[in-house]
Amino acid sequence: MDIAAANSMTYEEFMDVFGNIVEKCPLITAAVWSKRPFDNFLDLENSVFEFIDSLSTSGKQGVLRCHPDLAGRELMSGTLTTESKREQHQSGLTSLRPEERQKLNQLNACYKEKFGFPFVICAKLNDKARILQELSERFENSPQEELQNGIEEVKKICHLRLQDLCSPGMPTKL
Amino acid sequence: MDIAAANSMTYEEFMDVFGNIVEKCPLITAAVWSKRPFDNFLDLENSVFEFIDSLSTSGKQGVLRCHPDLAGRELMSGTLTTESKREQHQSGLTSLRPEERQKLNQLNACYKEKFGFPFVICAKLNDKARILQELSERFENSPQEELQNGIEEVKKICHLRLQDLCSPGMPTKL
Repeated sequence: MDIAAANSMTYEEFMDVFGNIVEKCPLITAAVWSKRPFDNFLDLENSVFEFIDSLSTSGKQGVLRCHPDLAGRELMSGTLTTESKREQHQSGLTSLRPEERQKLNQLNACYKEKFGFPFVICAKLNDKARILQELSERFENSPQEELQNGIEEVKKICHLRLQDLCSPGMPTKL
Repeated sequence: MDIAAANSMTYEEFMDVFGNIVEKCPLITAAVWSKRPFDNFLDLENSVFEFIDSLSTSGKQGVLRCHPDLAGRELMSGTLTTESKREQHQSGLTSLRPEERQKLNQLNACYKEKFGFPFVICAKLNDKARILQELSERFENSPQEELQNGIEEVKKICHLRLQDLCSPGMPTKL
């Protein structure tokens, strides 16, 4: 797909294609359609990032709360979004040993109890060992630090999802 | 349900129950969880309205774009949300005669072409004749007027959805 194709879409077509570049936040995609025409896909991506950055603290927390736990209830119940399922699979989270899943679930529960939002990390850029390490380390951060860390991971996830949709129109470097 | 029950929910439970009080905008519900404890359900509702009002123009347009057309493609394809399906049914939109559906589809298409977002009206408070009349009349408005009108309808829909979930904790008067 090239940017001209994206620019020519109705908002319904645009949402059908790009509606989940931020997990379960079609509102963001729908808002960004107002900013077309886009010069290129990085311009589209920047419009998404600007929208996220413009949200209040509770709005940013809301974006994080729209994300599933890693190897959590949505994975177990088969209700993950297509994108999230693929990402969790690629990082090895769909084939954890029982003791690994139990440890991840315990750490996730502690993280959510402390911060009031889930641990968000770009699964595609991390394997399961790294994810467990990051979860342990980031748990020690302040709420403000983790809100910012989580939002930065949301942006990485968005970048890779856009890249999947628009390749080769996007640079691979993050 | 009483407000104490809502206040004691995890964000996941809260989203399971209240996630679609604004159509396909779980981000808003997820953000508002940060504002608990709520004094009562009107306090919860006001938190939702404040969040919507705080959005940029493109954000408000995005909220409207998350709404389906009345008697449109989602109704035909069976992909309406449970809440929207019930509301469209109650207003008679699921049993239109072919010529009525054609007229509504034509007016909807013209409206979307002019404004860049769908015609949003609280279907539960209007029958099909009134909806067709409002659609014709509101088409004449300016984009700024229609953005505001649409958002006011979103709030009426949200009020009634909350009322359904929390009754008798909410006053019936709008």
